[in-house]
Amino acid sequence: MSQHLDQLAVNTLRGLSMDAVQKANSGHPGAPMGQAPLGWTIWNRLRRHDPARPEWAGRDRFVLSCGHASMLHYALLHLTGYDLSLDDLKSFRQWGSRTPGHPEFGHTPGVEITTGPLGQGVATSVGMAMAARQLGGRFDRDGHALFDHTIWVIASDGDLMEGISSEAASLAGHLGLGNLVVFWDDNQITIDGRTDISFTEDVSARFAAFGWQTLSVEDGEDLDAIEAAGQAALADPRPSFVRVRTTIGYPAPHKQDTSGVHGSPLGPEELAATKQVMGWPAEPFYVPAELASVKVELMERGAKASSEWDLRHAAYVEAFPEDAAELDRRLEGVLPQGCFDGLPEFPADAKGLATRKASGKVLAALAERLPELVGGSADLAGSNVVKLPGDAMTKGAMGGRNVHWGIREHAMGAAVNGMALHGGVIPFGATFLVFSDYMRPSLRLAALMGLRTRYVYTHDSIGLGEDGPTHQPVEHMAALRAIPGFAAFRPADANETRVCWQAALEWQGPAALALTRQNVPTLDRSVLGSADGALRGGYVLADADDPQVILMATGSEISLALEAREQLASAGVRARVVSLPCFALFEAQDAGYRESVLPNAVRARVAVEAGIRQGWERYVGFDGAYVTLDRFGASAPADVLYEQLGLTSARVVSEAKRVLKG
Amino acid sequence: MSQHLDQLAVNTLRGLSMDAVQKANSGHPGAPMGQAPLGWTIWNRLRRHDPARPEWAGRDRFVLSCGHASMLHYALLHLTGYDLSLDDLKSFRQWGSRTPGHPEFGHTPGVEITTGPLGQGVATSVGMAMAARQLGGRFDRDGHALFDHTIWVIASDGDLMEGISSEAASLAGHLGLGNLVVFWDDNQITIDGRTDISFTEDVSARFAAFGWQTLSVEDGEDLDAIEAAGQAALADPRPSFVRVRTTIGYPAPHKQDTSGVHGSPLGPEELAATKQVMGWPAEPFYVPAELASVKVELMERGAKASSEWDLRHAAYVEAFPEDAAELDRRLEGVLPQGCFDGLPEFPADAKGLATRKASGKVLAALAERLPELVGGSADLAGSNVVKLPGDAMTKGAMGGRNVHWGIREHAMGAAVNGMALHGGVIPFGATFLVFSDYMRPSLRLAALMGLRTRYVYTHDSIGLGEDGPTHQPVEHMAALRAIPGFAAFRPADANETRVCWQAALEWQGPAALALTRQNVPTLDRSVLGSADGALRGGYVLADADDPQVILMATGSEISLALEAREQLASAGVRARVVSLPCFALFEAQDAGYRESVLPNAVRARVAVEAGIRQGWERYVGFDGAYVTLDRFGASAPADVLYEQLGLTSARVVSEAKRVLKG
Repeated sequence: MSQHLDQLAVNTLRGLSMDAVQKANSGHPGAPMGQAPLGWTIWNRLRRHDPARPEWAGRDRFVLSCGHASMLHYALLHLTGYDLSLDDLKSFRQWGSRTPGHPEFGHTPGVEITTGPLGQGVATSVGMAMAARQLGGRFDRDGHALFDHTIWVIASDGDLMEGISSEAASLAGHLGLGNLVVFWDDNQITIDGRTDISFTEDVSARFAAFGWQTLSVEDGEDLDAIEAAGQAALADPRPSFVRVRTTIGYPAPHKQDTSGVHGSPLGPEELAATKQVMGWPAEPFYVPAELASVKVELMERGAKASSEWDLRHAAYVEAFPEDAAELDRRLEGVLPQGCFDGLPEFPADAKGLATRKASGKVLAALAERLPELVGGSADLAGSNVVKLPGDAMTKGAMGGRNVHWGIREHAMGAAVNGMALHGGVIPFGATFLVFSDYMRPSLRLAALMGLRTRYVYTHDSIGLGEDGPTHQPVEHMAALRAIPGFAAFRPADANETRVCWQAALEWQGPAALALTRQNVPTLDRSVLGSADGALRGGYVLADADDPQVILMATGSEISLALEAREQLASAGVRARVVSLPCFALFEAQDAGYRESVLPNAVRARVAVEAGIRQGWERYVGFDGAYVTLDRFGASAPADVLYEQLGLTSARVVSEAKRVLKG
Repeated sequence: MSQHLDQLAVNTLRGLSMDAVQKANSGHPGAPMGQAPLGWTIWNRLRRHDPARPEWAGRDRFVLSCGHASMLHYALLHLTGYDLSLDDLKSFRQWGSRTPGHPEFGHTPGVEITTGPLGQGVATSVGMAMAARQLGGRFDRDGHALFDHTIWVIASDGDLMEGISSEAASLAGHLGLGNLVVFWDDNQITIDGRTDISFTEDVSARFAAFGWQTLSVEDGEDLDAIEAAGQAALADPRPSFVRVRTTIGYPAPHKQDTSGVHGSPLGPEELAATKQVMGWPAEPFYVPAELASVKVELMERGAKASSEWDLRHAAYVEAFPEDAAELDRRLEGVLPQGCFDGLPEFPADAKGLATRKASGKVLAALAERLPELVGGSADLAGSNVVKLPGDAMTKGAMGGRNVHWGIREHAMGAAVNGMALHGGVIPFGATFLVFSDYMRPSLRLAALMGLRTRYVYTHDSIGLGEDGPTHQPVEHMAALRAIPGFAAFRPADANETRVCWQAALEWQGPAALALTRQNVPTLDRSVLGSADGALRGGYVLADADDPQVILMATGSEISLALEAREQLASAGVRARVVSLPCFALFEAQDAGYRESVLPNAVRARVAVEAGIRQGWERYVGFDGAYVTLDRFGASAPADVLYEQLGLTSARVVSEAKRVLKG
């Protein structure tokens, strides 16, 4: 492509970005303008992609970690032939448009990931690179490489200040993810002014310490230099970090290189002046006719690349039909037929089993049926009981399924998202429930993107005992239940754990299992409701004719409710016990089913959970009672804590009697 | 002190740690054993402290970032003369003891900070160092240095893998916090095995990139080498990072240098074998009589150090009586008399004012009255409207009050905790409400410690508009309300913002203000309830004789409730409007007051908030209705979003009518 056409494209990216932000009277023109040459070089010279097939599995991924530069992304999509029209660009940031303020996965063809919260894109890209390497390690053969694609990332100062990107970069260096290239838009400006008011570290040296190749491009307008750095990145076995010195808002004559151009439209005058500097027509949303040929060329190149890959794929199918069948199924995201058949069942046992241990057995069985299950723990593999059969993922053996995330919960959260976005794997992460807080921004994005990510959160209450309040979740179930679209399961016993794993894997969004450290009785299902009830989120576990009171609980507190029911029966009180392992799933049931479990007429209700009451009010109402916590836990043996903090069957009984009296 | 006594002390630390963990049959022996020489060297040779005066303002702080090594801390407290008895050590990890599983601030004399969640200690220590330097910058004069103390930290691998420590270390390097020394317990073991399964970066090089002095001690048993490194740290103007190569569980003959010694008791046999290797009596909790003299020596040294500081303080009082009076008041944590008098009042104004802007005006006025207010934004100072009068805190001018946290919300959260722990300042941090997720582990610790930290969270709903769902909080008020002891305020208008600032500053724990980006009407208080009602968390804003329905709301949705009340009045329906800016504060009121605001008899209730309903059920019950959200937002102008997502006064009216029909 001629230098002239390249420059025309770069100018067009700048013009469209300025115009769209101006028209919306809202948005971020500075970053798209400064990054336009970088973005264009990646999309035109470095990235292997096919605009007509945005979901082609062999494509290079593109992550705009600084999501506020969304107009650059939309303009690139438009110019390179993706299904995004000029009219789409004109409705930037409007209700119902395909061009929201920050890029949204599943919303705009060609947008690979939702970004905006800083640091997430960089860390998520590490998960994409891991997934590509995992699939490559599992499936690629000599002469049959299907997973040789690259993850291209543009990151801003903010992305690199956020701790999550350090965690993720350390992991990427450790795993030697040579298929990952991060370009740092080093524009030396953040919202509050010059970066040196808060950010004076040697960023490249930090990435070198993480084990990355570090490169520099001193002039962010120099497309050849950017391309050369990208090629050097491809040639190196390490992940690569490329510092690109740019000017935010370039070439706006008065506002470039200032924070004023970060988050506000240029304004009509500066916009006009900038177009004059660029020698650009004043006409808004101007796209030179010459660029039509560029689009055609890019689309032809893309079609060639993807069909070349298709040929490779066809050869693979020919050579390795069984592997290919597994691969294709995995890439389609379809679970194998019958994968939930014959999972471990657990005999009734009063002494019981910790649900984390039951989960470990179920997970091991699932892992045999679901080779796409890939994940591990943030350095608590034994405690979380998540070791899968097979090898660890290491630099030299990336096909391993057991990921050692290290003590990096937040990067784990984002990388799990990245693996899900990449496809071909069902990723999971594990830690203690209390540390779900560390990953919360990534959990939220998983929910927003509707990703089928999974989390194993053990040590799910004060029941973990002596480690004390820093490790005892009390508000975390409520906090997880608060995220729209997130399914938080807290199974009552071993068999419910099996069923909750199934429900979690079938849930069309992120799902977590909260599991006990301590033993809980394995319930006798011959006299109680089937654990399959958990597939509906909540169900009647133990009933009474014409119940007077409903005792509701989850997890380890189910046994308190069951004990209380017996004691109430002795006192002539008819109590129903409802197990509610997943509020979100229960809410997704029809009203008739919910009414059958929690009949409106029975207003005497007691909720029992070793956590705060928030969220339970929905099911308890004004006439019920709570055997819950309104404080942090303490360091002591679990049984002492339950007693001292009033989580006892005796208290459930007395509360039930109290509410019955009304 | 003789080498013999030093070794005796180190052995005693090891013995007590092993014994206490064994007796509790729970805990972490490995880290205390490996770190014993390091801990002893800090406490005996480097740290300036007075065991008899654990709250002496001039003391060097000690942060055990790896809180699981708590037994080292308790044993150090005991051996050096703090008020912690051998019986206290014997009740390690038991209900009601002063020796919980992880160190807890406010629980054990001499414990400066609650640690356990990894990374928090390192990041919090940065805040302590900042507070010391801020006070020094403000108060110290030539020949009158009161704030020359040092923050000594022991950090584990996990602390350094967590992203929060990278954020904080970058900030510490930027600010040149030479009063901060972090010793890295480089034992090459984590829970899942050898660190090199997940952690192969060059940690020292990373800290060098952050602008730290980096030092190494190759033999963690070498007290002189540790001391020399500590002295070199004190001599350097940069923060110092000292890698200390240790052996976890040393000298347990079979378990040292394995992950097996991390989180489980040694067991009787290995314990006995270890004592044999050490040449140590088998007697549990053995403390050699010779160490009594060591304790005396340390207490004498401590008393000398603190009384020398007292003399300096007295000289300061003499020389600078006014500054000294302010300083002493600040160190006592007492607010100045009348500091809430004469704060800005805002005239009624239908067009109104964004509550973030009202907050900015109130904060500026508070800053004049409260010179101890120190803080700033995570690179959103203008958006959060938190610039205080006066200078920025910079490396060369640490007395400045405006902190540029950089795009590091998590480190900001921890550092704010550290400033509060240090004392002498009232710290705050600011960002968008949606990014409170990034700081959540630190918010939780603030609540657990009961710290009076403050947070300004602007852009508090879909009302921020075009930036879209990545930036629009919907579940965050619920998530903040879930943290025990945390007060989350969402004021309805400018005057309520003033009152909520007062309530937040008076709250005995962490408190946040959630503030609008967009304008909201400044209510006419001549016809409505006084904004002072917000001092009780909730109050009747607009009443009706014998109300039929209660409309409850917070923040920007109060105006929808008020409009609905008018429309209902036209239809002959008597509605009360209740403003509930802070659930936690409202719950702290007596039952009579709460009943007066929300009479039990009025069951027709509608909650209105641009967020999820979770938490509101407490006030709404089964017979009420919700004008809330059950989904993420979208990118569009704010008014369009409110309309499209059904947050309208018309819907409040129709829901009110519906619930009245019953």
